[in-house]
Amino acid sequence: MTLINTLFRYSHFRLTANRVSSIAINNLKAQHKSYSIDLKKDQVKMASEKLLPQIFKFVDQNVDSYKKLLKEAVAIPSVSCDVTYRDDCIRMVHWMQDKLKEVGATSELRDVGFQTIDGKEVKLPPVLVGVLGNDSKKNTICIYGHLDVQPALKSDGWETEPFELQERNGKLYGRGSTDDKGPVLGWLHAINAYKGVGEELPVNLKFVFECMEESGSEGLDALLIEQLKPEGFFNTVDYVCISDNYWLGTTKPCITYGLRGISYYFLEVECAKMDLHSGVYGGTVHEAMSDLIYLMDQLVDKDGKILISGIYDSVAPLTENEKKLYTTIDFDPEAYRKSIGADKLAQNGVKEQLLMHRWRYPSLSLHGIEGAAFQPGAKTVIPGKVIGKFSIRLVPNQEPEEIEQLVFDYINKKWKERGSPNKMRITAQSGRAWTENPDHPHYQAAARATKLIYQTDPDMSREGGSIPVTITLQEASGKNVLLLPMGAGDDMAHSQNEKINVRNYIEGIKLFAAYLYEVGKLPK
Amino acid sequence: MTLINTLFRYSHFRLTANRVSSIAINNLKAQHKSYSIDLKKDQVKMASEKLLPQIFKFVDQNVDSYKKLLKEAVAIPSVSCDVTYRDDCIRMVHWMQDKLKEVGATSELRDVGFQTIDGKEVKLPPVLVGVLGNDSKKNTICIYGHLDVQPALKSDGWETEPFELQERNGKLYGRGSTDDKGPVLGWLHAINAYKGVGEELPVNLKFVFECMEESGSEGLDALLIEQLKPEGFFNTVDYVCISDNYWLGTTKPCITYGLRGISYYFLEVECAKMDLHSGVYGGTVHEAMSDLIYLMDQLVDKDGKILISGIYDSVAPLTENEKKLYTTIDFDPEAYRKSIGADKLAQNGVKEQLLMHRWRYPSLSLHGIEGAAFQPGAKTVIPGKVIGKFSIRLVPNQEPEEIEQLVFDYINKKWKERGSPNKMRITAQSGRAWTENPDHPHYQAAARATKLIYQTDPDMSREGGSIPVTITLQEASGKNVLLLPMGAGDDMAHSQNEKINVRNYIEGIKLFAAYLYEVGKLPK
Repeated sequence: MTLINTLFRYSHFRLTANRVSSIAINNLKAQHKSYSIDLKKDQVKMASEKLLPQIFKFVDQNVDSYKKLLKEAVAIPSVSCDVTYRDDCIRMVHWMQDKLKEVGATSELRDVGFQTIDGKEVKLPPVLVGVLGNDSKKNTICIYGHLDVQPALKSDGWETEPFELQERNGKLYGRGSTDDKGPVLGWLHAINAYKGVGEELPVNLKFVFECMEESGSEGLDALLIEQLKPEGFFNTVDYVCISDNYWLGTTKPCITYGLRGISYYFLEVECAKMDLHSGVYGGTVHEAMSDLIYLMDQLVDKDGKILISGIYDSVAPLTENEKKLYTTIDFDPEAYRKSIGADKLAQNGVKEQLLMHRWRYPSLSLHGIEGAAFQPGAKTVIPGKVIGKFSIRLVPNQEPEEIEQLVFDYINKKWKERGSPNKMRITAQSGRAWTENPDHPHYQAAARATKLIYQTDPDMSREGGSIPVTITLQEASGKNVLLLPMGAGDDMAHSQNEKINVRNYIEGIKLFAAYLYEVGKLPK
Repeated sequence: MTLINTLFRYSHFRLTANRVSSIAINNLKAQHKSYSIDLKKDQVKMASEKLLPQIFKFVDQNVDSYKKLLKEAVAIPSVSCDVTYRDDCIRMVHWMQDKLKEVGATSELRDVGFQTIDGKEVKLPPVLVGVLGNDSKKNTICIYGHLDVQPALKSDGWETEPFELQERNGKLYGRGSTDDKGPVLGWLHAINAYKGVGEELPVNLKFVFECMEESGSEGLDALLIEQLKPEGFFNTVDYVCISDNYWLGTTKPCITYGLRGISYYFLEVECAKMDLHSGVYGGTVHEAMSDLIYLMDQLVDKDGKILISGIYDSVAPLTENEKKLYTTIDFDPEAYRKSIGADKLAQNGVKEQLLMHRWRYPSLSLHGIEGAAFQPGAKTVIPGKVIGKFSIRLVPNQEPEEIEQLVFDYINKKWKERGSPNKMRITAQSGRAWTENPDHPHYQAAARATKLIYQTDPDMSREGGSIPVTITLQEASGKNVLLLPMGAGDDMAHSQNEKINVRNYIEGIKLFAAYLYEVGKLPK
């Protein structure tokens, strides 16, 4: 799941042309050797009745090999935001292609062109697009995952080397263990487990595995919308599943049916054509920083209430039904507070209010200032041009265009009140919120699978963050999209000492196998 | 002159122990071979009357060699803020030691210990301390200069390679040409010119040349105060001269008798023990950034008026006499405005008000925020801890302790009003303003020298910036300190395409020679 970089999609006009090959994905020859190809039809049916327990047993017998493979994947430092690791990213994609081949899938590496870094064009890692099974009687699931990771150095505060998977106290520590290499391998293992017990897969699978997710998924939108969709890749897809998020807490599983959108603002003020010495020029110029700080201080109050006029007007009204949903969710505000080391939470720390403000109300965060001093120490410059960064998480019924206009109008009004002679400019990039109906048969199938593994009904949860590919896949396929988390809420993705619990990894493999089984039973 | 890094000195208690050798500077044997040692006393006296015109002629005849030597000095990329150039800094100091030796000075490289960078100790370049002449009947001038430079890359926007001195349209372009290699070499050439015309130097000289000025002069304070002073280095010093600043404009010379001080603040707000995902946590925490932005917005209004209660109370009153001084100063607000590309200047662009707000009134600048997003792009983090940086330029009668207390009280009051549950902390580093009496005989001598070269009375100017070594040298020597600029106000020190005008360089050498002559005539 993306923490740092976010790709914004709410208009396809913003997609840039890419340079992918034009070889149609549906020309891929389905040459894979299905392991159950020789089984008679009735044998398959009979086997199915006892199938899942057999698969679970098989998974429990192969824990060591699953850990070994994750160790191998973690050892490739596929850091996408740092071009010095670009070869490792490419190696990672090739490694995964080999693994897909081993389970019998056909695949193709799709060129998605270049990214521009410091004025130079740098080749993007290819996107791995695969197909396993083309039985027209079976449902087809499109699975998305990512193979790249956030940067990590032991010196950042890791207890052990981040790219050496290490087991301590039932946890597997390593960069990418939970985000997203563990879940991606989970799909492989689940497929393999069917093979291991000599059974046919209950569904057809299509794969989209990228290696730029942590860096804005550059090139992916264009590939999905402008290439794969016209080529017919999504024609046979019935459901989309993404495992790239986490449980809300640490004990209770959940299935995620909503994400907030984002409207990101670049608020620029310029007072001079270069940075100025604060001794020499201080007192003689209208400083851009004080104008910017003034504008940024008009946006949100100390309790997080957004001060932009009309911003809450279009928020979907809270129904009694929805209100009830929050009361049953397993969420401990005190544990949450402690986990981040805050003295006091917002919303007076009330559970339902906290959940609603994470999921169904907009929030505004001030992220920082580009062009100003940011280094340790006592830099004494008057920045000539500064760009304040803030964003609003969008929620259902808030249209990006509408919100951008409200923000622009508000900032322009405040700027007029300020009466500064400096130059001000504001621009935005936005992507809308995403929700699905959790009562959809796809969600029910996933819920049955989850209950089978964890003996409890999963929470139907939303998340405050944004995974833009969710909307793109929804648009490209026109089908129901579901987020099926493998890891726990304390996995510290993006942070030091990222881990996945052995339990979440192993039960997660079973969960994926059960999910494939349950979706396989849905009417075609 | 320091733009970026400033070393703060107002209490010696803040000086850290250094590791310099304990060899006393006054043990240096004055073994230099003075070029005029064989001249008879009366010969010297007679020569003096026609001395300066001879010297000026000699200088005019040697322009090419002066350019050549500056080219050599500029070619050593002695960038002090980047340790990868540390060897070049050391090489630069050795190069200069050779040059001092060539003009007959004895010198010593003084070890000033280590600096800590990313937890590692890195050796500082030595400070070059020299002596030329020890005639007890002559005045002794202590000359300070620096050999290090700001970073520069052609790709920053230089028209030519920054470390290759290039002449275009009467200007010598290159990093360090004006800050401060040109002026430092100016002293060498002036000494050499006396030698060239077969004359004895009219003064004794002592030199302090460092190579860390652009990086806070690390180690220098301790060397001056704890080593050189106790060793008696300053016992014979009568005057201190620094050439490390610039004319106010581009045509009229000036002598500088005042600098503002600085009080630099680190304003820290913490809401969480780590950075948080703005999607996942936005709406549930009291964000540190909004608290910090609120506090920073309370400090100064759009016209630069400082809002801190009582901050103007101790500012030295403006006398009628001082007021008159500003009217005669050569300063063109419109040229100043255009040079920085501002739409409108503060103080309604009125010349006298602009000068007073640069020199004799405090100014407050907001520099930036450490810990927040600063990169290009759309980072979506909620910073856990942020440190706002701002500084107030101090002016005569403002005591750093008093100003710090006013700021602390004001911030604490505003913080209480805010009512945030987050943690707030403010710390400061300060150095007081410096002024000398421009009517002092030392200044009159320098003014006579300047008039001789430029046929105009120099402006007696102050500067808004801070050169902390000025105060340290004033304290260490107990003598009158004077700033004698060589370069013009448009030299773009620290910026792209730094240059020194050939005229300023060559006439500056004559100016230095004349200054030595005039100080030599002052009563002992």
